[in-house]
Order: sequence, then C-alpha cells, then structure tokens
Amino acid sequence: MYNKITSEDIALLKSIVGENDVLSQEFISPDYAHDELGGIEKMPDALVRVTSTEQISAVMKLAYSRNIPVTVRGSGTGLVGAAVAVEGGILLETTKMNKILALDESNCTVTVQPGVLLMELAAFAEENDFLYPPDPGEKSATIGGNISTNAGGMRAVKYGVTRDYVRSLTVVMPNGEILTLGATVAKNSSGYSLKDLVIGSEGTLCIICEAVLKLIPLPKVSVSLLVPFKDMKSAIESVPKIFRSKVIPTAIEYMSRDTILFSEDYLGKKFPDTKNDAYILLTFDGNTEAQVNEDMKTVAELCLELGAIDAYIVDTDERKKSVWSARGAFLEAIKASTTEMDECDVVVPVNKVDKFIKFTHYLAEKFGVRIPSFGHAGDGNLHVYICRDELNTENWERILKECFDLMYAKAEELGGLVSGEHGIGYAKKDFLKRQYGETPIAVMQGIKKVFDPKNILNPNKICF
Amino acid sequence: MYNKITSEDIALLKSIVGENDVLSQEFISPDYAHDELGGIEKMPDALVRVTSTEQISAVMKLAYSRNIPVTVRGSGTGLVGAAVAVEGGILLETTKMNKILALDESNCTVTVQPGVLLMELAAFAEENDFLYPPDPGEKSATIGGNISTNAGGMRAVKYGVTRDYVRSLTVVMPNGEILTLGATVAKNSSGYSLKDLVIGSEGTLCIICEAVLKLIPLPKVSVSLLVPFKDMKSAIESVPKIFRSKVIPTAIEYMSRDTILFSEDYLGKKFPDTKNDAYILLTFDGNTEAQVNEDMKTVAELCLELGAIDAYIVDTDERKKSVWSARGAFLEAIKASTTEMDECDVVVPVNKVDKFIKFTHYLAEKFGVRIPSFGHAGDGNLHVYICRDELNTENWERILKECFDLMYAKAEELGGLVSGEHGIGYAKKDFLKRQYGETPIAVMQGIKKVFDPKNILNPNKICF
Repeated sequence: MYNKITSEDIALLKSIVGENDVLSQEFISPDYAHDELGGIEKMPDALVRVTSTEQISAVMKLAYSRNIPVTVRGSGTGLVGAAVAVEGGILLETTKMNKILALDESNCTVTVQPGVLLMELAAFAEENDFLYPPDPGEKSATIGGNISTNAGGMRAVKYGVTRDYVRSLTVVMPNGEILTLGATVAKNSSGYSLKDLVIGSEGTLCIICEAVLKLIPLPKVSVSLLVPFKDMKSAIESVPKIFRSKVIPTAIEYMSRDTILFSEDYLGKKFPDTKNDAYILLTFDGNTEAQVNEDMKTVAELCLELGAIDAYIVDTDERKKSVWSARGAFLEAIKASTTEMDECDVVVPVNKVDKFIKFTHYLAEKFGVRIPSFGHAGDGNLHVYICRDELNTENWERILKECFDLMYAKAEELGGLVSGEHGIGYAKKDFLKRQYGETPIAVMQGIKKVFDPKNILNPNKICF
Repeated sequence: MYNKITSEDIALLKSIVGENDVLSQEFISPDYAHDELGGIEKMPDALVRVTSTEQISAVMKLAYSRNIPVTVRGSGTGLVGAAVAVEGGILLETTKMNKILALDESNCTVTVQPGVLLMELAAFAEENDFLYPPDPGEKSATIGGNISTNAGGMRAVKYGVTRDYVRSLTVVMPNGEILTLGATVAKNSSGYSLKDLVIGSEGTLCIICEAVLKLIPLPKVSVSLLVPFKDMKSAIESVPKIFRSKVIPTAIEYMSRDTILFSEDYLGKKFPDTKNDAYILLTFDGNTEAQVNEDMKTVAELCLELGAIDAYIVDTDERKKSVWSARGAFLEAIKASTTEMDECDVVVPVNKVDKFIKFTHYLAEKFGVRIPSFGHAGDGNLHVYICRDELNTENWERILKECFDLMYAKAEELGGLVSGEHGIGYAKKDFLKRQYGETPIAVMQGIKKVFDPKNILNPNKICF
C-alpha cells in the first residue's frame, strides 16, 4: 500500500533539509526504533531532521505525492509507541526546531517551536517572571509531544492541563499545506475547534510546527508539604476533603513506601521519611507568604484530623531537593528495579483512586507480580507499572495481558478512561476500542480521513 | 432534498413526546421563528418539546429515517441565528429538560440536563458552597446553549471559558444513537477529544442531552472596583499592566459613558458615576478579606498611577446592584435605544482592544451611524452593536454590510477571530469563511459529514 523510500526520495529529502539531516536505515541509531518504554519496535526507513515549518511542508508534499508514511518524533520520551514508525517510512524529528520565538508580555503568551523541551520552556518562563503551569514529570519531553498527548502533569489540580494553555497552533497538513488554528486570544467560538482536535491527537492529524502558549504571572511563593499516612486508603481519602476546605493546592501527588525505596536506591539519596506506608505530597502557591502559609496550615491541620501521622513542611533547599528529585525519578527508578515493564496511565474520578490502587494490589497478589504505582491523587491520574522481574517470556506476556485487561476494565467500571496523559499510541489501541465501542472509534477514523485521506501521517495509531 | 413533515410524522412525534408537546406550524408562536436578535427568520414546520435523552433519540431516529432537518433550541437567547430552523423541519426545544440531576461533592462536579438555565445553575452551585465560574451576561440562556457556543462570559479572565468546565457530555447522534464523550475526570488523553469538538459546535454535530460540569469551591469574598478614566485608550491600556502586577482579577469589563447612559435610561436607575468617558469594572475574589483587599489595593493604586480619575470600591449592596444591573442590561438597553441593530462579537488580543474600539468610532463617523460597544477588556472579547436608528432599509443594509466587512477585516488584521463567544450560526458564516480560507472550512465540512452524513442536524450553519 505504501511506497518504499527510494534513493531518489533520499536525494530529494537531502535537497530539502540538507545532506547531514537525512539518514537512511543503516545509519540510524537503533534508539529511533523505540520510545522511552521500548515495548514497540520498528526501524524507520529514513530519519529526517527538520529545522523549519517550510521544511516540514516540503517533506510532507514529497511524502504525500509518493505515498510514504511519516511519523513525527520529539525527544522520544513517550510510553505507548506513538512516536515509533510502526509502518516504516520517514521518521521526522523535530528536536532541532528548539527555539523560543517570542514572548508577548501584554498578552501573557510565548511562541515556541515544537522541539523546545519542557524544562527549557519552564526556565525561560521563570526567567521572565512567568509560569508555564503544565508540569509533566518528564522534563526532557518536547512541547510538541506534550501538546500531542495533552500532557497533564502535577499542577493540573489547580491549573489544568496542556490543552488549557494552547492558544494557537501552526500546523502542516499531510499534503504539506500550512495552517494556523486558533489565535492569541482567550475566547473562541469561531467554528469547530480544530485546535482542540489536534491537541492530544498524537501526531496523527497534522504536524505541529509552532505553538502560542499561555503563561501566567509567576506566583511569588511556592511551598510543599509532605504528609505521611498509615495506609494508602487514608491518604487518598483525604483528597476530596482537602478540596472542601476551599484551599486548592497546586499539586497533590501520592506515593507509597515501595516506590520511595526504589527511588532511594536509584538515586542513592535519602528521602526525609520512609517509616510509613503512604504519603501525599502537596504544593501550594500564591503571591504572599501569609496566604500560602495559611493555606498550608489549613490543609496540614485537616490532614492531621483525618489521621495523618505528621505533616512536614518542605521548605529548606535540601529537603526540597530530596523530595522532588525522588518524585522526579520514580519512573526511572521503577524501570531500574526490573528487567522489563509496561505501564498503565488510567485516569479515574478523584474519589476512586484508592479503589483502583487497591485493585492493583489484588492483581499483584493474584498473579504474583510487582505492580508499583505513583501518581496524581489530586486529579485521579495514576501511573501503574507491571514489572516482569524474573518471569519467562510466555508467563510475562500472559500475565501482562490479563492484568491489563482487568485493570482497564476496572478503570472503566469506576468511571475512568484509558489514558490521563500518556496517550493511546500503538500500545493502548485495543483498550480504547473496547471502552469506546464502535461509533466513537468510527467517528475518530472518519476525522482522521478528513485530515489525512491517504493515511500517511503516523498510521496505525489510536483508532486503527 | 429534505422531506416535508407529514401528518403521519406528527402522529409519530406525538407518540414519542406526548400529544401536547408537538405543535405543527400554524400553532407555533412566531417567537420560534427567530432568536434574541431577530435578524434571521424562519418558522419551523413542527415544534417538539422533549423531556428526556430517550425522547431525543427517538425523535432523531425518526428524523434520520425520514430525512427531516432538526434544529435544537434552548431559550433562544442567541444572536447569530444558530437556533433558527433556517431549513424548516423540526425545532427541538430542550427547555423542559431543566433538571439538575446530581451534585458530586467529592469530584466537584454537577450533572445537568441541557435546559437548565445559567442562573439556575449559578444559584444551585452557590447554595452548595460551590461556584460555576463561566458567567456570560445572558443569565437566562440554557447550559446546552452555553456549551454549544463555548460561551465565555465575564470571569474568563481568571477562570477560563465554558470549555474548561465540561467534563463529559451525553449526546444523541443524528441517527439517534446515544453516546457519552469524556468522563468525570480531570485529565484525558484517550483518543481525539470528541467532547471538545462538540463544545462550540452550535448544535450541528450532535445533540447535548446531559453534561457533567466542573465546579470550584465558592470563594468566600468577592469585591468589585469601578475605575473611571478620561478616555478609552487609558482605560484599556491599563489592562496588560494589571496582569504584570501579578494580581489576576476575576473579571475586567470596559464600558463607555454612552452605554452607561442607555442603561440608565432603560433601567430608570442611576449609575454611581457618569462624569467620565470610559470605565473599567474589575472583580476580585478569594478566601480572605485581607487577600482580596490587598489585590484590590494593588490594582487601584496602579490604575491611579496610570491616570485613572478615581477608584470606587463597589461594596455596599446598593452600589453593587446599581453597577451590576447596569452591566447586565447593556445589550437590552442598546436594543431599546434603536429601531434595529446587529452585533459583532469579535475577540482580539488584549492589547489590541483599544485599537479595535477606536476603529469602530472611525466607522461610526464615516457612515454616520451609532456603534456603541461594551465588553470584556480582560480577555479581548468585544460586543459591538451597529444601530439602525432612522436609516431606510436600503441604506441600513448597505451600511451594515460595509461596516461588518471592515470590522471583521480589522479584527483579522489585529490577530483576532470572528467570534469570542456568540458563535457563527447563520449570520456570521461569510466572515468565518473569509477569515479561515478554503482548507479549514473544508475540514469542518468533512467533520460535519462524519457526524451527520445526511446533513439533517442544524443544516446550513457555521461552515456551509
């Protein structure tokens, strides 16, 4: 169905992006065959590194006329194979498009290329006394990738997700046409929101070449609070009660002792407290110390009333570092603790988080596997990892499949969805289909066809 | 192309919703031929009042099999003809579906039927110590209508627009199938966001039958500040500077003396100050008096530095009433001041609002018409009214067309969009087409076809 890339195609690609930025198969690092998690593997036939919207447009015109599949890739930090060229063809890498193009202080927006890393954007915003609120754990992800998965991150409790910060997108359509979706405005009721359709579409509808993102004034004060509980149930049950106190924390993360210990091992650094089974880590921000301290005090007292063992203010630089570097290393630490793993990133109603975690404990026992987890107690988005450890291939595959089947069914039963922020990509397609049923999947396929009638852009993902 | 409604169809509709809730043409009030503004007129062939999702599904199954167009209508407070059955057929009224179905305190959500009025939802939320942040001026609009236009309202500055508060939608597809889009969760990366596509689609893709909306804890304190300036330029130019002070007001409205005087006439009530040309009205909210007062003081001092004439705290009940009832009556007051009018609801970058208002003054002078305006200085969304007054039909139509052509071109030149919150409906289709160009319109038409292959749901709107 698709054409194979010829030496003539390679020559044309080189004429678009330059000699050094087109690599054909034998010269491509095997790292480009997979993403961060590594379960899905396929080498692209050509790796093309672009530096401008015009180059992307020219590459797509060629790919469109030649019927060659194109998969876009940022830093490859995904976990569901969305940036793996499962049908071969061109892997189009955007990491060289890493410029922050403009800061518009009057409108509180920043214009970025898609290859800017989240950590670079965060630093740039702070240097200019602004905050880019979305704060996914993986700081070396590109903004293009964050938009393509509608990444949520830790501050979603107070500030919402990536979608809420995208004002406009410049995109290249599969046929090479360049379009702008949205505008630098705060309200929009001007036809179907194509911008919102593209956000979270994992590179299947068009290619994000530039984004105008909303910033907010940088809060002057930000403090964290680490609250140990005797068990996960009491920890998680405190969350809806915190909301009722009228204080809206910036972030509410949960973590179990297990996960903290992996992270201590991995980083070789001590966590302030590992005596207890379950912890919530909260952040509060605002413009005055008095306000932030009052918010923190209200929540600390409430947690103690609800059975918390203690409430540690994370205020010294040392303690901040030990707590947040641990939180930042959970994924890597769990990965380092096992031979192979796969992940589940369901999102459930906030008051069902405990039920879901308990269910993973039940599965761990039933199947005799480790299933550590951590995640966003404040917004119901869990990151759950099934570890292979010493299982042979046959048992691993069987147990993984059964665990996933049961887990996604449980999330659905609790009123949740397949993915909170990692996306569907290639790995989670079956679970999406099972949850949504025929019509929503058919509608998605229809939309895909409207954008990409030849099905050349990141084919075989999400709804196929 | 469409079938006419037969007496047999009427009998079938009556068997679905009951004898009294199907009216055929001769018994329908002429009010149903138009919306609040009244420019677009067409009588439906049948008015059907539904009370449940199942009834909507049954009506759509009939309409689909019989190829009869269906237009959904809430309270008819729209301004662009979106809820006018321009192709005839069935007008499906949702105002009887006016129940608030559930409050979920743990997840801070409320489940509503589409016919609940904004004022009813606002009151319900407050009674339960929550706030539903979206606050469009027209409080008797239905929530279904607000979602269908992605209404923004006054508090968008701090809290965002309707889109940001819709967690999930139960919808009926044109063929009668019932689907749920989204879930009661805060994050979602589970395939294309069909929910976000439906928000703002003005009843053209499917019918909203139920919505789960996010609430926030009701702030304990809310105070307004009325700041007169010598002219509109100084008033509007203060807005980006207010953001740089790190205070985020809940709302920043602008109003000119003209508009205030219409409102005084209309309501027969005095506004606290009418000596000055231009005013901004700000609101601040929070959980402590100290915090809110400090925010207000910061902004008041800044405005005085920037040339404000004064800064009145709107704190007594009497003053609150006089200011906010005036603000609430602007549209009605302008309407009462003229024989006929049409409106433009563009949204421009916040720092371009003054340029746009100045342009409307230039047009008023050039064409010898009154063009009063008011709107949301904090989010760039303007409500501009061209008044017919004593013009004869020929001159009115010519001037209206020329003014609109120039205004929408100006908004585009300033980086704005056709509609901030009123939508495109029937009246603004040409301006949308002109701004977006061929491909985005073709993509929208393609999406419409995916949802509604027979084109029976609110046909001839937005992108056709």
